[in-house]
Amino acid sequence: MTSRLLYELAGEDASLRFSPYCWRSRMALLHKGLEFTTLPWRFTEKEAIAFSGQGQVPVLVDGETVVFDSWAIAEHLERAHPDAPSLFGGAAGQAVTRFVNEFTDTVVNAGLSRLLVSDIYPLLHEKDRAYFRASRERRFGKPLEEVTANRDADLARFRQSLDPFRRTLAHQPFLGGSAPLYADYILFGSLQWARCVSALEVLANDDALLAWRERLLDAFDGHARRATRHHAP
Amino acid sequence: MTSRLLYELAGEDASLRFSPYCWRSRMALLHKGLEFTTLPWRFTEKEAIAFSGQGQVPVLVDGETVVFDSWAIAEHLERAHPDAPSLFGGAAGQAVTRFVNEFTDTVVNAGLSRLLVSDIYPLLHEKDRAYFRASRERRFGKPLEEVTANRDADLARFRQSLDPFRRTLAHQPFLGGSAPLYADYILFGSLQWARCVSALEVLANDDALLAWRERLLDAFDGHARRATRHHAP
Repeated sequence: MTSRLLYELAGEDASLRFSPYCWRSRMALLHKGLEFTTLPWRFTEKEAIAFSGQGQVPVLVDGETVVFDSWAIAEHLERAHPDAPSLFGGAAGQAVTRFVNEFTDTVVNAGLSRLLVSDIYPLLHEKDRAYFRASRERRFGKPLEEVTANRDADLARFRQSLDPFRRTLAHQPFLGGSAPLYADYILFGSLQWARCVSALEVLANDDALLAWRERLLDAFDGHARRATRHHAP
Repeated sequence: MTSRLLYELAGEDASLRFSPYCWRSRMALLHKGLEFTTLPWRFTEKEAIAFSGQGQVPVLVDGETVVFDSWAIAEHLERAHPDAPSLFGGAAGQAVTRFVNEFTDTVVNAGLSRLLVSDIYPLLHEKDRAYFRASRERRFGKPLEEVTANRDADLARFRQSLDPFRRTLAHQPFLGGSAPLYADYILFGSLQWARCVSALEVLANDDALLAWRERLLDAFDGHARRATRHHAP
């Protein structure tokens, strides 16, 4: 029995775990080599995580400690498990990784959301759909199906927004250097989000980022590669 | 007498040093606490740095070693002067800082170039002007004066592109954490470029980045604050 629980966003199929932020936390737990159990959670199950004092996942219960927000979870894991492999490689690595986190949260995930939003909707549990549609249509100012109706230009813009990652990985195998660190899991979580919910290949087939993503799909005995997907390639 | 020389891009006024990349190297040398002499260099003085095997600055001559390219210079300084204060705070910090470097080279500096290019031209030595006009007009596909004719939209876009920095600095005083590291000098170099050549204030007067920039202008006894500017605020 483990006392470590990770609440993750799930689809109608409880095994479909697609949140980019939950993927960050899951990869961080694997990196640390910690045992954990994941629990599926839906957008409208606010009472299930009310103990965390807020209403979003990921939520980590680590023994007596409750932590929410993927960045706070990574910081907690680094502090609470200092003898396990480091996620940041020191204080400076942690500080600079925060920039990767903020860039990905804003530029990358905003770009992906625009590409994926109508693919996500039918995968949600029925009880989540009204909330999702209303909140996303408010964000985009139009029906979900219209957001993704002409994705070509948005896809080109999204791919271009990854240029700084591409250029970095032209010099080193991982964002963290010779081996993956939390900086890698940040971007990987976003690509895994896309991979789990959509048939759209968000990376072009000649994109140098593909090889990097393959390495992370292989990590931890192919853990992320085995994830439930609702669109096979 | 120091044997350490930094070749920097200069204007007609040899004391005007405005290259964002040269500012990175200068701040890195100051951070390391190393003595150095700077030498003014103009775009067309290829023979003066031919010894480096290429035609751009910054070029650092550090004893017997010649290094060009701001990133390579930072790596060299870190490796060659390990007992001086670290620029990266370790291997992971260095790897992740590379992403900050690539983001700034592409997104930030491309955005700034579009805002500054017509202000730079009249500050250049007469012998550099034809080269500069031709190369930049080829890049932008229009006369310099047209590039900056309506800068409001470009300025808004540039300011928005800094959001990931702004969000990072909402959590910590420097990109490097509690004290400045090379990641800070990367972005600072870009803002110093703007500050030296243009009356345009590229940061809005309520931008949280202003306080961070002030701290870096104060660093090293106000070294960067004393830089020659051709447009007082």
